[in-house]
Amino acid sequence: MRWTFVNNDFAGEGRSVIQTNDLAIQRGYAVFDYFRTINNQPLFLDDYLDRFFNSAKELSISIPHPQAAVKEIISQLIKKNNIPQSGIRMIATGGYAPDNYTPVQGNFILQQQPLALPDSIQFEQGIKIMTYAYQRDLPAVKSTNYVMGIWLQKRLKEKGLDDVLYFQNNIISEFPRANIFMVTPQGQLVTPAHNILAGVTRKKTLAFAGGILPAETRDISLTELKQAAEVFMTSTTKRILPVTEIDGIRIGNGKAGALTRQLREQFIRLGESVTGSAHSPS
Amino acid sequence: MRWTFVNNDFAGEGRSVIQTNDLAIQRGYAVFDYFRTINNQPLFLDDYLDRFFNSAKELSISIPHPQAAVKEIISQLIKKNNIPQSGIRMIATGGYAPDNYTPVQGNFILQQQPLALPDSIQFEQGIKIMTYAYQRDLPAVKSTNYVMGIWLQKRLKEKGLDDVLYFQNNIISEFPRANIFMVTPQGQLVTPAHNILAGVTRKKTLAFAGGILPAETRDISLTELKQAAEVFMTSTTKRILPVTEIDGIRIGNGKAGALTRQLREQFIRLGESVTGSAHSPS
Repeated sequence: MRWTFVNNDFAGEGRSVIQTNDLAIQRGYAVFDYFRTINNQPLFLDDYLDRFFNSAKELSISIPHPQAAVKEIISQLIKKNNIPQSGIRMIATGGYAPDNYTPVQGNFILQQQPLALPDSIQFEQGIKIMTYAYQRDLPAVKSTNYVMGIWLQKRLKEKGLDDVLYFQNNIISEFPRANIFMVTPQGQLVTPAHNILAGVTRKKTLAFAGGILPAETRDISLTELKQAAEVFMTSTTKRILPVTEIDGIRIGNGKAGALTRQLREQFIRLGESVTGSAHSPS
Repeated sequence: MRWTFVNNDFAGEGRSVIQTNDLAIQRGYAVFDYFRTINNQPLFLDDYLDRFFNSAKELSISIPHPQAAVKEIISQLIKKNNIPQSGIRMIATGGYAPDNYTPVQGNFILQQQPLALPDSIQFEQGIKIMTYAYQRDLPAVKSTNYVMGIWLQKRLKEKGLDDVLYFQNNIISEFPRANIFMVTPQGQLVTPAHNILAGVTRKKTLAFAGGILPAETRDISLTELKQAAEVFMTSTTKRILPVTEIDGIRIGNGKAGALTRQLREQFIRLGESVTGSAHSPS
């Protein structure tokens, strides 16, 4: 039995439901966040909770429990489910609005699923991506709106590509579900500063990267990106994953770069260290 | 008891539910449409059904019943509920995607609610609006994504305004839930041609407008709009409603215009005629 939590109670399989007049269903009006566990320990939970509560505040969505209580419920959910390597999704919705438009007290949902991370073989190969002119609405808010990202999946499949990077006016921003970094030919680490969701993996990478190479956040043009020595994505489910081809152009030598590998190893060590898990799967 | 229809069955109050792992809730991935009834007769139903099925196709969302069967279910819903003047919402979702991202067989929902239309007093006053630089994603698709429209409600309330008109690069497109028309100082009816949802009320208005004044669809700049003789919105819930102020600038004499009034009367007559309702409330 895999348990979900809805509002005030744990719900068994098939019983995690909300009514169809919720603004999440009627108007796509909801926020969420997603973190993972290593050996049943949540990773960087406070960062994700802060972002989740901030997204909700930005969209005037009320979460029915204070942040400390949500943390405690998460701890109970992890114990009940015992899925050591998992992803946990928190959703807060606009609720049952009588006018189908104005947010009211919303529904609150916690879901847990097993999560497999990219392994070393996937890491060494990296991913091939295309770019697409698009800017997410309210980029600092993690809303549930992924219409464009999902709609583009068909095009990606047709082209045999792994992901799509958004840009606007020749300046790159982010993937639908990940941030982007590049290592310049001069050996500097750079990631976009604006019009993005502030990823937790991005933040942690920026925090420790200085020990490996100089790092900064600023605008990056498409042209500059395609001339980078190394490019990688960061996300909760991918950690640090090399991008080896962009719009058919090979990046570096077309394989995982040395600095990307070093940063990934450092990130994995950090995760092990904060969760007290010396031997988490890499 | 107000009935809803979910997938294959009518559901009583509080029993219209879907599981929380549907893509509509997880990723805001769903389409919908909304039509009204006059004296228990659906108005322009085929137009709305065509658009609904087309939206679903564009987003690779599957509706579990063919269009003729949906029409028959709607007819049963109208009988069971007996809400003569109502709005009926059809929703089709991305379904319970195992990867939380790729649409699968979705959920299908029909909901009916009483609907009050703007009366003659509201018509004569018209509405005051502001403009906002924004372009809806995939504008031809009626997705459930209204994050921007709802987010802007707070700003509208603060300013004491009724609605917001989107524009980009100085060209206007539409309201979050309605189309826009203007009558030029030369007496021509114009409505934007591109980057909009093709409204059914818009389409019907364009079809009969030629009998009253010359009409065309083309790009309209913000500047031109603010110098219009008359401006109005069209939508299923508002029919034809004058816009009397835009960004603090009065349109025409600040009251409902004569041509707008004539078009509204014609639209009401058309609704009465196709539903066989000689005395629907105006």
